[in-house]
Amino acid sequence: MSNPFFKNKGPFLILDIFNFLNIKTEPLTADFKVTDIKDLYNSNNSEITFLHSKKYKELASKTKASFCITTDSLKNELPTTCIPLVVENVLLSVSKITSMFYPDAINDDFDNSTSYIDKTIFKDQVTYGRNVLIGKNVSIGINCKIGHNTIIEKNVSIGKDCSIGSNTIIRNSLIGNNVRVLDNCVIGKHGFGFFPNKIKNLRYPHIGIVIIEENCEIGCGSTIDRGSMSNTIIGKNTYLDNQIHIAHNVKIGKNSIIAGQVGIAGSTIIGSNVRIGGQAGISGHIKVGNNVEIGGGSGVIRNIPDNTKVMGYPAKKIREFLRDNK
Amino acid sequence: MSNPFFKNKGPFLILDIFNFLNIKTEPLTADFKVTDIKDLYNSNNSEITFLHSKKYKELASKTKASFCITTDSLKNELPTTCIPLVVENVLLSVSKITSMFYPDAINDDFDNSTSYIDKTIFKDQVTYGRNVLIGKNVSIGINCKIGHNTIIEKNVSIGKDCSIGSNTIIRNSLIGNNVRVLDNCVIGKHGFGFFPNKIKNLRYPHIGIVIIEENCEIGCGSTIDRGSMSNTIIGKNTYLDNQIHIAHNVKIGKNSIIAGQVGIAGSTIIGSNVRIGGQAGISGHIKVGNNVEIGGGSGVIRNIPDNTKVMGYPAKKIREFLRDNK
Amino acid sequence: MSNPFFKNKGPFLILDIFNFLNIKTEPLTADFKVTDIKDLYNSNNSEITFLHSKKYKELASKTKASFCITTDSLKNELPTTCIPLVVENVLLSVSKITSMFYPDAINDDFDNSTSYIDKTIFKDQVTYGRNVLIGKNVSIGINCKIGHNTIIEKNVSIGKDCSIGSNTIIRNSLIGNNVRVLDNCVIGKHGFGFFPNKIKNLRYPHIGIVIIEENCEIGCGSTIDRGSMSNTIIGKNTYLDNQIHIAHNVKIGKNSIIAGQVGIAGSTIIGSNVRIGGQAGISGHIKVGNNVEIGGGSGVIRNIPDNTKVMGYPAKKIREFLRDNK
Repeated sequence: MSNPFFKNKGPFLILDIFNFLNIKTEPLTADFKVTDIKDLYNSNNSEITFLHSKKYKELASKTKASFCITTDSLKNELPTTCIPLVVENVLLSVSKITSMFYPDAINDDFDNSTSYIDKTIFKDQVTYGRNVLIGKNVSIGINCKIGHNTIIEKNVSIGKDCSIGSNTIIRNSLIGNNVRVLDNCVIGKHGFGFFPNKIKNLRYPHIGIVIIEENCEIGCGSTIDRGSMSNTIIGKNTYLDNQIHIAHNVKIGKNSIIAGQVGIAGSTIIGSNVRIGGQAGISGHIKVGNNVEIGGGSGVIRNIPDNTKVMGYPAKKIREFLRDNK
Repeated sequence: MSNPFFKNKGPFLILDIFNFLNIKTEPLTADFKVTDIKDLYNSNNSEITFLHSKKYKELASKTKASFCITTDSLKNELPTTCIPLVVENVLLSVSKITSMFYPDAINDDFDNSTSYIDKTIFKDQVTYGRNVLIGKNVSIGINCKIGHNTIIEKNVSIGKDCSIGSNTIIRNSLIGNNVRVLDNCVIGKHGFGFFPNKIKNLRYPHIGIVIIEENCEIGCGSTIDRGSMSNTIIGKNTYLDNQIHIAHNVKIGKNSIIAGQVGIAGSTIIGSNVRIGGQAGISGHIKVGNNVEIGGGSGVIRNIPDNTKVMGYPAKKIREFLRDNK
Repeated sequence: MSNPFFKNKGPFLILDIFNFLNIKTEPLTADFKVTDIKDLYNSNNSEITFLHSKKYKELASKTKASFCITTDSLKNELPTTCIPLVVENVLLSVSKITSMFYPDAINDDFDNSTSYIDKTIFKDQVTYGRNVLIGKNVSIGINCKIGHNTIIEKNVSIGKDCSIGSNTIIRNSLIGNNVRVLDNCVIGKHGFGFFPNKIKNLRYPHIGIVIIEENCEIGCGSTIDRGSMSNTIIGKNTYLDNQIHIAHNVKIGKNSIIAGQVGIAGSTIIGSNVRIGGQAGISGHIKVGNNVEIGGGSGVIRNIPDNTKVMGYPAKKIREFLRDNK
């Protein structure tokens, strides 16, 4: 994943990584400099990766990473070029190491580095309301409007011809041209991802961003969380109504229409030309095809193939739903 | 529909309307001045109307409008006093012509004409918080309170003895006496109505307003959209809980009680003395009678007669629901 | 219930209480000073209580209160030490008398007594954004952050190491250490409780508060209402996702995880280590045990015992739900 916003604090010595994970053996190359943590597919030979499930053994056998956080039972899936770091809980360890590289990606405390927009370079090129705040590393295209009390926190790029409403908060997001974000939205906060723990849950880093492509509209009171290890994406010309919640890592295709109060859980992928009726909910980690129609109030808990109309809870073909509920 | 707020930019020459719709024939009376666009029933002989479905042929035969946007197959339903403008897509053409008359009714960019309340005539007659903004064409009755950071945008009338919370945004609305609007609401933005288009959706104008009658309460985080060609109405003494979404053109009667997170889709009509449980959803374009009770979580997809209790998804008589789910 | 925040305007003479309720008989001890109104169990001999249902006759027989608002048919359940005030509508009368003692607990008009934080004692001990407001009777621990435009209204105690987001409003709440409240939340407003009346509904007082224990997280756009006669409680280390609504008097145990757009209706009690999927709704006045898992989209309308997994609307055991919906 490209990561334009979260600053990598690396490289770190592999010895430090061993120590941080409480691994008792010592690495052969204690002064090896690890530059980043990435998934099996994307990592290169200066990086560390992770393997937590047999599902990925194919990918594991081909990884280019020099190190891999994994378990005792999975370590033999790795090529000889990749040294295993054997731990009890892979994801927890990944979270810890990601936090080393990207400490800013864990908490979403308010951005204390903002300035009033009339103290910034945008003073003369943006039409803005009262009390508008702009963080560091922000770009805004020509002919944009930003409403009252809106906060563009650090790490945001907004295209040209955009209209942002009032009382809206945006961070860690790339917004295309001609996008409209209405009032009272929160875009780009971390997702609802953490390791439950009886004393104090451990939040994992969210180094992904939110990407909203050109010509989209986001309705009032909506929340779109940024991704953890990938991005949350709203495809071009997709319209969201009010009070919608889009969780982390969700990807929605183009030309889709999503009615009020819909919720889409984490890591789900929605195709293009999809229509979703009001209050429908889509479970996490599933795939909804192109040209799908989902009736209002539906609860989608399984994948839906292309060109299908569904309704119900759990959602089934709309013809069956209507027949079963005459 | 009365339209106190959106300014009609007409009249326009019928020749200009022909040209704007790319109609190749020339009108016989090129300099006829068209004053407004209305529906079949409400239009008079200086106005243009539209007919897009056989359902309305009865109304069409009696329209007083001098011009009508329609299709080749419907044009013969019109009286001889009404000249058809034959187009491919009636609603799209209506949208274009409505935009000519009411260009302000399409976009909901933030209101850039507001002033801080202490610079307005309301300074001494309203109890207000910090950072309160007031737009043009606003009236506020005696003994009102307006909370911090709240924005009363242009075209709002608020009665007496009202309490508006903090962080709330109101535009294009008529609010009666003794109404309470709590925190973080957005009232009066355009509805989720547009013509889908694969390159760039085309929003149609929303020239309706929101009317909230006396003694109502609107809970925190709620959104109430204004109407497109009619108004969105909340009848007197109706109470809405938190996080409710009321779509465009919805009408709700009096003394109704609507619990948290309910959503009502566009153009639906709800009677008086209706009770709706939490998270229920009501489809668009349906009718719910008086004295109806709708159980929490229900999905209402068909009309409901007066004095009925329903529950389920789709909603059925509550006795059946409980029997089927023992 | 402890009531640290709402100021008791009593004592009142019992004669005044008789008069306020339009009770024609005269009390024997007209100058008896009544100090508070409490439930049957918690009241002492200087206080007034109420009895509105036979369900509570056991408690009634042992009450220590000197006076009790009740009906003609229930008055004989009281001990001889407790003088009945016979009325038509017990709850309505209780509401009226509670309003005498706690007039501030009815309306939630915005707090007009706030100051900008840089004019308060918190100026040097809190990290804060722009336009932050602080009401009276507020305490904030060390090492806290409060985001832009956030309003801490009167009667709020915040522990140490807390992070409050931007555009959030908090009142009448006790917040423990290391709590994170994200952006655009409203916490501590009165619940959706009132006596319906055809002319003008009568809201009853909410003298409870919201208690959020240590290590909790509350997601963006959530609303948590304070209790009416008891408190609303979120147990320690419980995490709420975005756009959640928690109604008045709800109690949630510790280490629970509640996903986006969930709604929990009034007075429901949720155990510890509970997991609730997105968009699930829980009816009011029910009990959900410990270690319960509730699937996304479920509608829970009955009590759920400990250690149970449920799903569906109405919710049933998840195995049954999946079997019935293969």
